[in-house]
Amino acid sequence: MHLAEVTSQRDNNRSCTMAGAPSKATEAVLVKSAEMPRDSVKVKGYDFNDGIDYHALLESYKTSGFQATNFGLAVEEINKMLQKKSEPFEDEESADTSVELNPCHRQKTNCTIFLGFTSNLISAGVRETLKYLVQHNMVDCIVTTAGGVEEDLIKCLAPTYLGDFSLSGRKLRDQGINRIGNLLVPNDNYCKFEDWIFPILDQMVLEQKTQGEHWTPSKMIARLGKEIDNPDSVYYWAYKNNIPVFSPALTDGSIGDMIYFHSYKNPGLVLDIVEDIRRMNSQAVYAAHTGMIILGGGLMKHHICNANLMRNGADYAVYINTANEFDGSDSGARPDEAISWGKIKKTASPVKVYADATLVFPLIVAETFARNFRQTPVKENSID
Amino acid sequence: MHLAEVTSQRDNNRSCTMAGAPSKATEAVLVKSAEMPRDSVKVKGYDFNDGIDYHALLESYKTSGFQATNFGLAVEEINKMLQKKSEPFEDEESADTSVELNPCHRQKTNCTIFLGFTSNLISAGVRETLKYLVQHNMVDCIVTTAGGVEEDLIKCLAPTYLGDFSLSGRKLRDQGINRIGNLLVPNDNYCKFEDWIFPILDQMVLEQKTQGEHWTPSKMIARLGKEIDNPDSVYYWAYKNNIPVFSPALTDGSIGDMIYFHSYKNPGLVLDIVEDIRRMNSQAVYAAHTGMIILGGGLMKHHICNANLMRNGADYAVYINTANEFDGSDSGARPDEAISWGKIKKTASPVKVYADATLVFPLIVAETFARNFRQTPVKENSID
Amino acid sequence: MHLAEVTSQRDNNRSCTMAGAPSKATEAVLVKSAEMPRDSVKVKGYDFNDGIDYHALLESYKTSGFQATNFGLAVEEINKMLQKKSEPFEDEESADTSVELNPCHRQKTNCTIFLGFTSNLISAGVRETLKYLVQHNMVDCIVTTAGGVEEDLIKCLAPTYLGDFSLSGRKLRDQGINRIGNLLVPNDNYCKFEDWIFPILDQMVLEQKTQGEHWTPSKMIARLGKEIDNPDSVYYWAYKNNIPVFSPALTDGSIGDMIYFHSYKNPGLVLDIVEDIRRMNSQAVYAAHTGMIILGGGLMKHHICNANLMRNGADYAVYINTANEFDGSDSGARPDEAISWGKIKKTASPVKVYADATLVFPLIVAETFARNFRQTPVKENSID
Amino acid sequence: MHLAEVTSQRDNNRSCTMAGAPSKATEAVLVKSAEMPRDSVKVKGYDFNDGIDYHALLESYKTSGFQATNFGLAVEEINKMLQKKSEPFEDEESADTSVELNPCHRQKTNCTIFLGFTSNLISAGVRETLKYLVQHNMVDCIVTTAGGVEEDLIKCLAPTYLGDFSLSGRKLRDQGINRIGNLLVPNDNYCKFEDWIFPILDQMVLEQKTQGEHWTPSKMIARLGKEIDNPDSVYYWAYKNNIPVFSPALTDGSIGDMIYFHSYKNPGLVLDIVEDIRRMNSQAVYAAHTGMIILGGGLMKHHICNANLMRNGADYAVYINTANEFDGSDSGARPDEAISWGKIKKTASPVKVYADATLVFPLIVAETFARNFRQTPVKENSID
Repeated sequence: MHLAEVTSQRDNNRSCTMAGAPSKATEAVLVKSAEMPRDSVKVKGYDFNDGIDYHALLESYKTSGFQATNFGLAVEEINKMLQKKSEPFEDEESADTSVELNPCHRQKTNCTIFLGFTSNLISAGVRETLKYLVQHNMVDCIVTTAGGVEEDLIKCLAPTYLGDFSLSGRKLRDQGINRIGNLLVPNDNYCKFEDWIFPILDQMVLEQKTQGEHWTPSKMIARLGKEIDNPDSVYYWAYKNNIPVFSPALTDGSIGDMIYFHSYKNPGLVLDIVEDIRRMNSQAVYAAHTGMIILGGGLMKHHICNANLMRNGADYAVYINTANEFDGSDSGARPDEAISWGKIKKTASPVKVYADATLVFPLIVAETFARNFRQTPVKENSID
Repeated sequence: MHLAEVTSQRDNNRSCTMAGAPSKATEAVLVKSAEMPRDSVKVKGYDFNDGIDYHALLESYKTSGFQATNFGLAVEEINKMLQKKSEPFEDEESADTSVELNPCHRQKTNCTIFLGFTSNLISAGVRETLKYLVQHNMVDCIVTTAGGVEEDLIKCLAPTYLGDFSLSGRKLRDQGINRIGNLLVPNDNYCKFEDWIFPILDQMVLEQKTQGEHWTPSKMIARLGKEIDNPDSVYYWAYKNNIPVFSPALTDGSIGDMIYFHSYKNPGLVLDIVEDIRRMNSQAVYAAHTGMIILGGGLMKHHICNANLMRNGADYAVYINTANEFDGSDSGARPDEAISWGKIKKTASPVKVYADATLVFPLIVAETFARNFRQTPVKENSID
Repeated sequence: MHLAEVTSQRDNNRSCTMAGAPSKATEAVLVKSAEMPRDSVKVKGYDFNDGIDYHALLESYKTSGFQATNFGLAVEEINKMLQKKSEPFEDEESADTSVELNPCHRQKTNCTIFLGFTSNLISAGVRETLKYLVQHNMVDCIVTTAGGVEEDLIKCLAPTYLGDFSLSGRKLRDQGINRIGNLLVPNDNYCKFEDWIFPILDQMVLEQKTQGEHWTPSKMIARLGKEIDNPDSVYYWAYKNNIPVFSPALTDGSIGDMIYFHSYKNPGLVLDIVEDIRRMNSQAVYAAHTGMIILGGGLMKHHICNANLMRNGADYAVYINTANEFDGSDSGARPDEAISWGKIKKTASPVKVYADATLVFPLIVAETFARNFRQTPVKENSID
Repeated sequence: MHLAEVTSQRDNNRSCTMAGAPSKATEAVLVKSAEMPRDSVKVKGYDFNDGIDYHALLESYKTSGFQATNFGLAVEEINKMLQKKSEPFEDEESADTSVELNPCHRQKTNCTIFLGFTSNLISAGVRETLKYLVQHNMVDCIVTTAGGVEEDLIKCLAPTYLGDFSLSGRKLRDQGINRIGNLLVPNDNYCKFEDWIFPILDQMVLEQKTQGEHWTPSKMIARLGKEIDNPDSVYYWAYKNNIPVFSPALTDGSIGDMIYFHSYKNPGLVLDIVEDIRRMNSQAVYAAHTGMIILGGGLMKHHICNANLMRNGADYAVYINTANEFDGSDSGARPDEAISWGKIKKTASPVKVYADATLVFPLIVAETFARNFRQTPVKENSID
């Protein structure tokens, strides 16, 4: 609602008089209101008397208020990204894919979608939703943390299990079982990861020494995606579809542990983050339009926004996280803070949904990417 | 997972040796793990390659981790309440509905479901979901705050609108528009409420004085539900279906403002909270089994739990709110704290979902009450 | 900072040119800035090289950013209340203390301070700070929940202990020990409370029946404060100093349990909330100025704000709580939402500190009430 | 409290009988409790009747409950680190400082303290507190994000200002003013930073090309600390005191922007993160004991904990942040989750304080580092 549209039409001869009551009180409580603008939207939720129709239910969220409204707005915002992506380039420059402008050699579209997520979402079942997006080439650039890479690869070697938030850390350590929220990862999974990655690290060192390969985190992730060769993996599909994945602090996790151990056996590997910042920024600078979908906070949220500053702001943005702004953290910063920096365009209509992404992201994908993708069998609802 | 089930089967002859790396580090990182129990559940999310099937998607939440898991557990817990409710009484005493044991004259079932919610959910579109539950007599006892009552009645007189969390309070006050999160309520709505409720208050005073009516908040709410006579109203259906509604601080809101003003015009109304505590507690004490569904925190959460202490604990419980335990508030207390008090049975499997109820409660109702209700047209999914 | 004061003085001939870098990027990143207003305040924290001076440290919070700034602003806001309170009445009407305008017979000052808190703060050691404020007559009207009353009284009978947030609810129930966050209350404390309160309830019923006493929650709390007769009690001092205490849902807690049990032995007690809403609102309507200090959320927060709507808004307000606005709850609503309702004046400068009150409220009292109170021995700092 | 210490001494012949009340209810409410262990600690807050004595007040926090208790425990935990640090090495191996074991050449002590913080705390006035710790060589290893480095350096060039959380992002962008929570950074500050850092980058490239310097983020930060040559800077003192600072994603911020721009003018700089993971892990592996003080969440929290896994767990740990565990994020994970991974020792007593660090960290430093440091003028309290 634009406040300016509320025309002040006060009527001071209030009919409701209440003899005796303190006039200060009655006047304060019964203040007359301006008329609402004609296009004001009434709050209205879903009525199950109309049957259980999940799509209609989720469409009603937009008029339901609070975070349900933000859910509805996030669906709209992502559908705007997809619409823009489907349109032809508006100028020739945007379509230019010379190496200088396109160091990752990814086929460009009219809207480059950046997808960021924290590692816990890969540990969780959101991984399958993320894999679907990458498998079908629906996003253009991924940013995550080291854990966001390795946990996907490790899941190809051994499963992660359901546990409980309140399991005792001491007892779990005695059993060699690691806890991530209410999930459990047996430590043997990391031993299997070591068995798998050591030969790859040997090969990387060899290529560096003999072929002059200049490794960066994004190049290493692509190589790991190739090597895992498993269609359950997010990074297998990122490799197949030539979607660059950035993770500047790739040493901060199990991959780093393995690099550390491996450096004693076969030293010399270099992972350069300077070339990657150029590759990353180029995804934003030379894009026709950009959209950001950021699940969680921390490094990857900042990294995507910072790259979009290089183009004077993303055109579209959706944040989904549980952080709040009061402590001044970048994780909790509202999209409006990013506008002040030029990370989101002043003309954009960014959305933040305050929620654990496990609750809302699969549903948002159902209402956007999946529904827009003709190859996905859409199960239409019909009355019983 | 029961930790006790994890049998420790450590294998110390780890094959992965890494020459040169600090053994302290490799031993710590590559600790062997015990085998997971056979019934351990693997984390697995929904794969949209199987099509958009919302019911299957929501069923996958249970194995997705974090709050998605809690969503799945909440669906299970409520379905347990409904199963128990559908079963015959296990003993005759439970079926006893003499006045002493049943002061609200509500037909008993084998499971009494307490539903609590904060007023903002009535302001939001969750009201329609709540109305559906009450209309179809699916819950047995309601507890809410004053706003949770009056905002439902006022919505029968004039609508609530969508706004924005960041609208200026000063500008809104100048226009006589009240903000509730991202919702807007024109102040004229409250003037209409005053016009509507004043004659009812006159009548209540008259009945008190001439017929000796002993008013309590729950009796007043039933009367308001009768008077509003509107099938969109939660309290209309609560009245029709004889579902008691408790709100001990009923004066804390617009109803209180009106009672305050009215007391100058026509003094003498008494609203007694002692009779209501007996009525409220009786719902729990004489129930065969009880379930609690509590949306939000504060008074109504405590009030439902406290009543269930009177029966040495509810059999089933689902909390949905955004509060955390670290500040020691009752709002943020986990169900396990209620177990220490005897408010939830030691044998129960209560669930807390950390989320804004607008995002999850309608979906939970879809997966439980609505799906269990044969009169609701269930729109089954079929492949395109 | 007023944005209007930032004069736009852009200098477009930026000197820092960087050959080759994408101009879109350099222009976006190196945007020229307007000059900051002359009165802009620089961020600066405390330097311990100046010694450990807690008062100076806390004064530095105002320029430290985030919630430290809000701490500093809260100190300022409360000191404004105290300054206003110390000033003579500005007009004769405000000084009028006829019974009609002053049903609680409290001596008025130029600023009526409302203090609200949730029950957990009484369970915690904040109780001693609250007791100090009430003992020295520093606040004028208290609103709390049932637990906020009874836990203070019960602490006069037996102590509350430190525990841990993660203690097992099942084990605690077996031992009859109730958990409140990381605190423990042996259940025997409630048995002692029953022994203490039953004779008082008998007497209240007798007075109602024989003397026509019309009991309300606030009158009952005053009576309990008189009966406890213990200088450690908040309500003993509230009674002594004639500070009214409102708790409309007084039956929602152990007091309610006891009233419920007692009603079988000696029925008939009536607790009327209508008279109390008039008493409560009168504290605000007939005050010269008002300030609100609200620790926590829920009923008491709303109740204080609603009473201040009756005077078209409080003059001063400080909220301290951990709730956020995103779920549309009144608990999490920022002061600006209260301005839209007329609960805080449009001209006020209300402050919200996002923190557990146990961390900040005693320090805020040190910097305000205690420091302003000449009878409190102020321990001045001196260099070693 | 150890539950095992609570001896069950139930007394079933409860004296409080209440004729008529439902026995189910009275028995549930009036359950007898076991005796509390003899060493149970009573909840007790500070009494301002004893005067304003901040040190005594803060000492009372430990028995005040909720986060005040955690504040008290955090003070204890850090004082344990300092005590251990002051003790002689327990064995010769720990004292070994050969290059292999000590690649950063830092003088070892009996307890290596890791300090981590997010960039917003450098933007805030907490910077001065952090600078004090580093200036006096009180911590041994720092981990932060790119912003946590550059904002300190930039503050040596131009100030950061107080603003407001609700300033319009669009208006601020028009003025070239960037918002960080309630702080404001004029964009010209970043232009000044560019002017300052470009020659340093030139020099770094030169040294790489001519002297074979192998740059890593930690080496670059040390160089920037040397170049800033300003005693207000955290990193100036880190350089002077040879305290290594790790920031693997150093390109994710303004430093990265400048490296990106500079790469067009003078390409070829390499920043290797592999050598840094060895340097970082060595700080933990070869330490006699370790303590972790982690302010905020995200990368730096994980990085410090992961390094401590290399030694099978830190001996001491204090987390201060506002995140909660319910979304399974590493940021919100309780210390107990880190124990399951071997990142904190099973025998440790780690503490998490749920608070914005701006509110509590300076006070914690006052009660620990500053109070333990004989060179800091301790301003003792004396009665007025």
